[in-house]
Amino acid sequence: MKLYGFGESGNAYKVALMLELTCTAWELEFVPFFQGGARTEGFKALNEMAEVPVLVDGDLTLSQSGVILDHLAKRTGRFGPRDDHEAREILRWLLWDNHKLSTQIGTCRFLMNFLPEEKRPPGVIPFLQGRLKAAYTVLETHLTGRGWIVGGAPTIADLSCCGYLYYPEPFGFHRDDWPAIGAWLDRLVALPGWRHPYDLMPRAFL
Amino acid sequence: MKLYGFGESGNAYKVALMLELTCTAWELEFVPFFQGGARTEGFKALNEMAEVPVLVDGDLTLSQSGVILDHLAKRTGRFGPRDDHEAREILRWLLWDNHKLSTQIGTCRFLMNFLPEEKRPPGVIPFLQGRLKAAYTVLETHLTGRGWIVGGAPTIADLSCCGYLYYPEPFGFHRDDWPAIGAWLDRLVALPGWRHPYDLMPRAFL
Repeated sequence: MKLYGFGESGNAYKVALMLELTCTAWELEFVPFFQGGARTEGFKALNEMAEVPVLVDGDLTLSQSGVILDHLAKRTGRFGPRDDHEAREILRWLLWDNHKLSTQIGTCRFLMNFLPEEKRPPGVIPFLQGRLKAAYTVLETHLTGRGWIVGGAPTIADLSCCGYLYYPEPFGFHRDDWPAIGAWLDRLVALPGWRHPYDLMPRAFL
Repeated sequence: MKLYGFGESGNAYKVALMLELTCTAWELEFVPFFQGGARTEGFKALNEMAEVPVLVDGDLTLSQSGVILDHLAKRTGRFGPRDDHEAREILRWLLWDNHKLSTQIGTCRFLMNFLPEEKRPPGVIPFLQGRLKAAYTVLETHLTGRGWIVGGAPTIADLSCCGYLYYPEPFGFHRDDWPAIGAWLDRLVALPGWRHPYDLMPRAFL
């Protein structure tokens, strides 16, 4: 399989991690994101949404990390739901991650680390960090006394929600403030095959 | 079925519209959102994410509009996918809507209309409007020469993406700038059973 991505993309990392954890053979098609690599006409022919990740699996060209994770769970028989209830719960947390967590971390981290200080729009970073605090609180509360987001085993809901939380660049998340999230991130690291995003894909920001 | 929501919530509207279009009997449980109605302990016992919509269907209590739309499509046999390809495409646009469209409109519209001017964080509204312009461009391009978001008929992908686009309050979206989106919104209005959000649920902002 071929994954279009780059190191800094937490959304691409979600897929790369799933491929590693399921021992699926894959290769990276590096996208030079900060040089406009996701906005070329060629890339938009692959994904009109102009975003990574894109996964090519035979005849299928898939985008949106949640779609790809769902496809890989079905394809490999790993990290998917065990019943209809778990299927709804997994979709619920994938949507929440897309709505409240990853989208805002991605924006906040971009502004704080990959945009020159003079170009940062005033007021936006503290606003996003305030909204993210509410999201971390939901996740912390959910994970308190629980090993995994859905059911008794890791699923693609965990792989989605963790996507941005291993990066070293500052964006306002401090593990010490969120002990249940921190312990859950450690449980994911302990899974056979886990690797850090920057060990799976080279960085695009120079 | 019982839907927890309020008039201003585009995410609750997505579900209310689906219930109307499928002629499903439902009643509203009004949530006084602006008085903290989604943050009470009682409400969080229904949905720890502290958000509407929540749908109670017999023994099932569901949250996240995408989960509820998927459930109702399966339950009613309407507005769902016709094959695996359409299922992936519907999920892809539901995720995109959650990631790029509804989440940012909801925030931008809230700041511009439901927060006193002196409390509005400076810089955030134009920043969100810039990001939304990119999202409208993706949707406009996709809908150009196409009747519906996925396949040849309306699906829950359409019901999700349209959720915030009928509201009268200003948030920077002007139909005249996006003719393919405008024509698609008119096609949805022409579906038997379509109703405006404020005709389905009373407003919570006083």
